[in-house]
Amino acid sequence: MRITALCLLMSAAFVCVPLQAAERPVAIAIHGGAGTIEKSAMTPAQERAHREKLREALDRGYAVLEKGGSSLDAVVAAITTLEQSPLFNAAKGAVYTFDGHHELDASIMDGKTRQAGAVAGVQHIESPISLARLVMEKSPFVMLAGDGAEEFARSQGVPLVDNKLFDTKRRYEQLQKAKDKLKQERKDKDYQAAVQALPTPYKVGTVGAVALDKYGNIAAGTSTGGMTAKRYGRIGDSPVIGAGTFADNDSCAVSATGHGEYFIRYNVAADICARVRYRGESVAQAADEVINGVLTPVGGTGGVIVLDRKGNIALTFNTSGMYRASRSSSSPAQVAIFKDN
Amino acid sequence: MRITALCLLMSAAFVCVPLQAAERPVAIAIHGGAGTIEKSAMTPAQERAHREKLREALDRGYAVLEKGGSSLDAVVAAITTLEQSPLFNAAKGAVYTFDGHHELDASIMDGKTRQAGAVAGVQHIESPISLARLVMEKSPFVMLAGDGAEEFARSQGVPLVDNKLFDTKRRYEQLQKAKDKLKQERKDKDYQAAVQALPTPYKVGTVGAVALDKYGNIAAGTSTGGMTAKRYGRIGDSPVIGAGTFADNDSCAVSATGHGEYFIRYNVAADICARVRYRGESVAQAADEVINGVLTPVGGTGGVIVLDRKGNIALTFNTSGMYRASRSSSSPAQVAIFKDN
Repeated sequence: MRITALCLLMSAAFVCVPLQAAERPVAIAIHGGAGTIEKSAMTPAQERAHREKLREALDRGYAVLEKGGSSLDAVVAAITTLEQSPLFNAAKGAVYTFDGHHELDASIMDGKTRQAGAVAGVQHIESPISLARLVMEKSPFVMLAGDGAEEFARSQGVPLVDNKLFDTKRRYEQLQKAKDKLKQERKDKDYQAAVQALPTPYKVGTVGAVALDKYGNIAAGTSTGGMTAKRYGRIGDSPVIGAGTFADNDSCAVSATGHGEYFIRYNVAADICARVRYRGESVAQAADEVINGVLTPVGGTGGVIVLDRKGNIALTFNTSGMYRASRSSSSPAQVAIFKDN
Repeated sequence: MRITALCLLMSAAFVCVPLQAAERPVAIAIHGGAGTIEKSAMTPAQERAHREKLREALDRGYAVLEKGGSSLDAVVAAITTLEQSPLFNAAKGAVYTFDGHHELDASIMDGKTRQAGAVAGVQHIESPISLARLVMEKSPFVMLAGDGAEEFARSQGVPLVDNKLFDTKRRYEQLQKAKDKLKQERKDKDYQAAVQALPTPYKVGTVGAVALDKYGNIAAGTSTGGMTAKRYGRIGDSPVIGAGTFADNDSCAVSATGHGEYFIRYNVAADICARVRYRGESVAQAADEVINGVLTPVGGTGGVIVLDRKGNIALTFNTSGMYRASRSSSSPAQVAIFKDN
């Protein structure tokens, strides 16, 4: 039962005040990846382009919420905006695998129903987050991988696109640099050690969103091209429910970005929500404990965006920067990249 | 610092009693799947065969622990025994996909280091649990899928086997029955509804183990052929760290079996350990809350085996049976199938 108005009996008549405005906050937070992002290494034009695209994604998501749309719709609206941009490591701006193509992962979760959908290693899907949502809503499964996920897409009328659609010169040069580094390292190390020795920027990059709608439901979604020079059908944390994405109305919604293997092993998204739920921590405290208290000591780099049903938002990372933006009924739009803004 | 002996100063001389036996419990629990397992539907010979194979797997795992082997070694020893048997839904006894072949999933996790490895959708790997361990120990990744995972296997000298190796008459007949049921249902429903209408036995079946070694380290592993008539590269909970498998020395080790989609959405393995860690619950209490308190009301069927560093064991399920066995320093070997034994 939803309480929609506060009424007082005055002189034998009811006077009612609608509680909508006060009772129904909306909120959204988005990220475009965390990592070694230094102001000195960006031109003013690059910085402006990133800020503008983040703002555009934020506005699209927030507009959905303002119009009474669902948190799921807001998450998809924000993420598809970032997927379509070559600036971020997802879909159009996806990094290259070791073999020179693109393998995309995404997942989405509905905090109200705990329904979830995920796709891993898809190569011909223009919007992996939209396909993840179709998996959630139109299949009896949660997680589909590779060719099978694309066969499902076809069965739903989703067109398959050429993998070259995701080619960009910048990412191709990153792959060449990564392979050069791998070759140098491999003189005396195996592939495992060589990949681990790659600088953080080669291992991170993701987009994501979390949202709270006026019905009090939260949702989370994440989409990525994964790790530069990844091999062997590697699946990172982004499509793993509990690691890269999690949403539960009883605790919080999380989208993560960072060195995915750590986020899987430390069950990062769900662990933040477990601390909120079982210890009564705020989203900011829980996110700080997991990112700075758990991951930093073991060398896991990255960040998370988190929100709860009250519209509290945390944007937490242990890297020099995280592309991020947020807005809620009670706080204006904010866009930031570096630690201090 | 480990206390290895209790010493008393008596008449100016120390008398020491080694604390090894009391201080270093070992324990193991295994499962071979949960579901609608009725005594009336099994012949005495079938029941005996299942009990004997469970006992053999238990003994192999326990022998590793008794000899001072690691919990990881014990988990792999027990699971490979079940993988090689046609009686259980993993490797040799794997169910068929909709397209008539076998796609295998497995994962393993080390509670001491929180290292983990997982493979999903492999078709030519004789022991998926052993490959998951190689992913953990020899790759920089946690989760590998499909052809890529097999390319990694080859790079590690693991021979690829014919998918027909996993063919069994019993499972083939199960597939035909499942497809007949799907056809009937699809007269007026789509594939999603039809799969959801399939009886539980078509959707479950897994093997797994959790162990505690004399060094105080716990580990967990899970291996499966997945869901009968699965499609579209479906990945269940077994290879998803936090859902089907989880281990953390600070809380507990879990291997799950059941309708995997629910286990992913409810982050079952990690949620049990979160309740142990953040609420101070026993493994039995936490397992009961999640299986009977969370999953049963939403229709999620299955079970878990759980243990902690003290050697406490919980074998919890909300189905009519779960193939299971356990043994520890303080309790003799027990093998059971039905609710009451």
